[in-house]
Amino acid sequence: MEPQAQPIAVCLVSGGMDSAVCLAQARRDGFLVHALSFDYGQRHACELEAAARVAQAGGASEQRVVRVDLSALGGSALTDAIPVPKSTSAEDLGECVPVTYVPARNSIFLCVALGWAEVLGASDIYIGVNAVDYSGYPDCRPEFLRAFEAMAVLATQAGCETGATFRVRAPLMSLSKREIVLRAEELGVDLGLTHSCYDPVPGSPRSLACGACDACLLRLKGFALAGRSDPVLYDL
Amino acid sequence: MEPQAQPIAVCLVSGGMDSAVCLAQARRDGFLVHALSFDYGQRHACELEAAARVAQAGGASEQRVVRVDLSALGGSALTDAIPVPKSTSAEDLGECVPVTYVPARNSIFLCVALGWAEVLGASDIYIGVNAVDYSGYPDCRPEFLRAFEAMAVLATQAGCETGATFRVRAPLMSLSKREIVLRAEELGVDLGLTHSCYDPVPGSPRSLACGACDACLLRLKGFALAGRSDPVLYDL
Repeated sequence: MEPQAQPIAVCLVSGGMDSAVCLAQARRDGFLVHALSFDYGQRHACELEAAARVAQAGGASEQRVVRVDLSALGGSALTDAIPVPKSTSAEDLGECVPVTYVPARNSIFLCVALGWAEVLGASDIYIGVNAVDYSGYPDCRPEFLRAFEAMAVLATQAGCETGATFRVRAPLMSLSKREIVLRAEELGVDLGLTHSCYDPVPGSPRSLACGACDACLLRLKGFALAGRSDPVLYDL
Repeated sequence: MEPQAQPIAVCLVSGGMDSAVCLAQARRDGFLVHALSFDYGQRHACELEAAARVAQAGGASEQRVVRVDLSALGGSALTDAIPVPKSTSAEDLGECVPVTYVPARNSIFLCVALGWAEVLGASDIYIGVNAVDYSGYPDCRPEFLRAFEAMAVLATQAGCETGATFRVRAPLMSLSKREIVLRAEELGVDLGLTHSCYDPVPGSPRSLACGACDACLLRLKGFALAGRSDPVLYDL
């Protein structure tokens, strides 16, 4: 009998805490993981340095960075000259979709992941989205991921010719930020390598986090509730 | 009574014959058209020069070119060092998906169009895909477009907050290449501005078409059946 080849997964790695845990989970699930990161004109480009650290430390077989110039379309504080909103408490995070929302970003990233999955012969895509402690982005919800899978079968040669399906795995979907911090510990992920801040202090070494944007507030809340201290440095 | 604002559509404009006719149809349908083109590492980059000509001549309100570096993922003769297949007759085009297929390309392009549509407040996206005389790409089929629309509602802030739907219009879907040539004439589209060849003669002025790749063969067949001569120049 032929030995079964190890299954391959593509994992979206932004360099944030969630994607680092997601990558570790994919490895734990038994996949050879190909890490995919995006240079999309984000203001916080130091994210990409974190993505490279995370992919390497997390045992990804390789990492590719795809340039998708979303800043050409405008409409988000993450790619435009719109100021990133600041606050002092995660309780201030509203119900509505914030200005840091990048239109259709996750759809675009998942589509590129789908294209790469097709090239690699992978049937699984990991994404670190989360519907509990999240910023209200519509493309982080389970119903979006199921609709994406339905589209993926029809979009690809593999789906079309062999009925191959693509599964979008979001192992963090139902975890709180507190649970993500604890899951990181369990999986041996060094969260000190990650970067979450939307608006890091310019010119600071290893990108000093602002401590006041949505991403910082959610992250700090997670560490506090988990009773752990965050290894990254804040401008506080 | 307030006058109704003219509805806005995003139209994918590759610079090929189909997208030129598609843009003209969107204008005829009464839309203000924003043209979206992609620099995706295609070998036939002169396509982009044609896209700019087509957008301007077709009366687009503006054109944006988004860089999406699909060549980073490999897997296609259009972006890799894989040779473009040549033939002498359109009858040789097989049923299977050819090597010029770029994995998930239309999905990626439509997702970017969706993001821009969201920024612009547009609810319609035009794409010049065609399921009759086509090269067998899975993401050119009507069932793919319907699945994309279902995903789009769930992917966007507009869909999420207001139930806004996005319609993907493919006015060329059921037309043969012959009918597309005749429709171009009807709509006053100058097909001499367009570029279809996957493998133009290097260094030739205005990108001399090879006349032997799938795209050239389909195009020439369309002109022949319509009883018209193709205004672009071929290396024949």
